[in-house]
Amino acid sequence: MFGVITIVGLGLIGGSYGLAIRERKLAERVIGVSRRETTLAAALRCGACDEATDDLIAGSHDADLIILCAPVTTISERAAMLADVIPPECVVTDAGSTKATLVRQCEIALAGKARFVGGHPMAGSELTGIAHARADLFAGAIYALTRTQHTDDAAFTLVHDFARALGAKPLTIDPAVHDEVVALTSHLPHAVAFALASAVWGGHPNKSALASLAASGYRDTTRLAGASPELWCDIFTANRDALLHAFDGFQSELSALRAALAAGDDAALLRALKQANERRASLLRSIA
Amino acid sequence: MFGVITIVGLGLIGGSYGLAIRERKLAERVIGVSRRETTLAAALRCGACDEATDDLIAGSHDADLIILCAPVTTISERAAMLADVIPPECVVTDAGSTKATLVRQCEIALAGKARFVGGHPMAGSELTGIAHARADLFAGAIYALTRTQHTDDAAFTLVHDFARALGAKPLTIDPAVHDEVVALTSHLPHAVAFALASAVWGGHPNKSALASLAASGYRDTTRLAGASPELWCDIFTANRDALLHAFDGFQSELSALRAALAAGDDAALLRALKQANERRASLLRSIA
Repeated sequence: MFGVITIVGLGLIGGSYGLAIRERKLAERVIGVSRRETTLAAALRCGACDEATDDLIAGSHDADLIILCAPVTTISERAAMLADVIPPECVVTDAGSTKATLVRQCEIALAGKARFVGGHPMAGSELTGIAHARADLFAGAIYALTRTQHTDDAAFTLVHDFARALGAKPLTIDPAVHDEVVALTSHLPHAVAFALASAVWGGHPNKSALASLAASGYRDTTRLAGASPELWCDIFTANRDALLHAFDGFQSELSALRAALAAGDDAALLRALKQANERRASLLRSIA
Repeated sequence: MFGVITIVGLGLIGGSYGLAIRERKLAERVIGVSRRETTLAAALRCGACDEATDDLIAGSHDADLIILCAPVTTISERAAMLADVIPPECVVTDAGSTKATLVRQCEIALAGKARFVGGHPMAGSELTGIAHARADLFAGAIYALTRTQHTDDAAFTLVHDFARALGAKPLTIDPAVHDEVVALTSHLPHAVAFALASAVWGGHPNKSALASLAASGYRDTTRLAGASPELWCDIFTANRDALLHAFDGFQSELSALRAALAAGDDAALLRALKQANERRASLLRSIA
């Protein structure tokens, strides 16, 4: 499918691209780029790439496809560094969790230099690092792809087919809508899980009772707080406006529950809980 | 271990007691009490009891142990109805999710009539009803048991041994501490999951994008919103003061995140996320 694919950033996502591309034979050669020696060694060892280098430029100038898997706030810098050294037929994509600003910046950085298509595979885990990379990470996952007025049709089709070849389900979406929606379905749940994990442990001096009485409900609801603080600080910052708006909606639902409870208004409380229960069922029913 | 055990209320928890008691041969006879014909039929069919009746009094007067598995707000009424018809050597326990008020009310209702020991097996699921009952529901679970100045020592030992015989791990706890702690580890996560499920689905008009971009993070964080609204309305109400206090703690963590994000104070945001991450790790490490 491709001659050379270069993967920039070899964490959970970058490593999983490498494993999947090699297992599914989607490229003749996979080059992995990372700044860390230990990561490069691990990537070679687990078979996530054929060649590993800490030199972004040297690793990229032969690439047919470059996948930027760096932290979301640094992706457009990487694109700018590559602009003058990659061939114009090269297609650049990314796996960043936010899209609006990032796609705009990458399109500007690469305008007239290479073709950019924003991507976001809806796969991942609270586990990070190449040690947790898996060849089947993208199998069955929705793979958001952005299309804007600057998107090259042929490049879009190529990345679309690539996503499908990984076993994922491509979903074409406007970058701003993507960000508004993931603020709700992903970033807000993360923020809530972090706040909840802090509140529970900080909420009572009897730590042994807290640990004893925490069951699967606590575990599941706070699982996302096990994710990397650095990574999520970046993502929250990159999607600030949409996330603040999502916070406000959550805040208003929570305040309604609290007010009904404080007032002893059981009918209003039950109504709010029923609505939540039905809304969750509606979302799950709508999943294709 | 017992002659007759009567289980009052045959949902997920009551049904699972029946299955576990019969599988582990902890009683000669298990009597199940429910007001619904279909539940009684289902309990007999799945083997959760030897006899089934809709008559609370008739089903209880021969009992050596009575387990009250009714909704948390109705447990003390059941205890009061039983007070004059059960033998004084009878031990009464419950499986209610809150303890302070309930234990006090049951102790008053049964004073001089029978011996009460409050219980709360930390097992369950967002699935309800006898159809989901399992003989191994309590295996390995913490089983909170309350001890107060009115608790009879022999009765406490009996219920303690019973919990152990179910495969659970008994934990002796003060009723008020129990309620403060489960407000944090269980009731607050439920309230947050309900509010989150409402906020996500209500937060954007593009329902198909919401459904497409909801991944495992959304699923896990809102799983508890799949629980019964009626059941949880009851539990929240029964633990109002402790839950309101837990809400306030959560609110303050969430406001700190929001403020740091809105101000673009990345250092404060990262600090808050790191603290949450570490606090969750501390809790999980403390689980015996």
